[in-house]
Amino acid sequence: MSVQDRSAPKRSVEDWRREIDEIDRRLVELLNERSQCVVEIGRIKQASGEALYQPDREKQVLDGVARANPGPLPDAAIRRLFERILDEARSVERVVMHGGEGKKES
Amino acid sequence: MSVQDRSAPKRSVEDWRREIDEIDRRLVELLNERSQCVVEIGRIKQASGEALYQPDREKQVLDGVARANPGPLPDAAIRRLFERILDEARSVERVVMHGGEGKKES
Repeated sequence: MSVQDRSAPKRSVEDWRREIDEIDRRLVELLNERSQCVVEIGRIKQASGEALYQPDREKQVLDGVARANPGPLPDAAIRRLFERILDEARSVERVVMHGGEGKKES
Repeated sequence: MSVQDRSAPKRSVEDWRREIDEIDRRLVELLNERSQCVVEIGRIKQASGEALYQPDREKQVLDGVARANPGPLPDAAIRRLFERILDEARSVERVVMHGGEGKKES
């Protein structure tokens, strides 16, 4: 059932929490897929001797997500969350670049 | 194309970035759907006089996402990210409970 389905019968706190749990599972998957992509980029850059950290790309990502944000989360909240996501991805990239697979690492 | 598709032709940094941009759009959607659910729970709790902040539920969410985590993000990173997600959701809940729709608020 969609969040937007206003004609649906009244839902309980438990119903909403089940929906949140499903969203969270999907978020965990996507966050890991995202960090896998970052690791792949790290490998390509390492092979070509390019710098791992590229502030222009980070700015592009943060501007992009704020622009794509429909709310109710404020744009500033989306930016803060993605700053943390970029931070964690960078840590995994560093760990994988120096051997090991990241998970259970911190 | 899936991240796991190892037999695919070699992908460039730009290819991976396009995949990241798609993942990010989906993350923005899900984060907002999630916070909409939190707002709905807040409304139900407000009507019944229940406390908005329930540390047991937050612990359940954090344990659940760490358990569901396949990596490469470390469990600790997933916990840290979800602590921030819960924090931002709580702020939106507070704003909406006191009128307004949150977006552009902070």
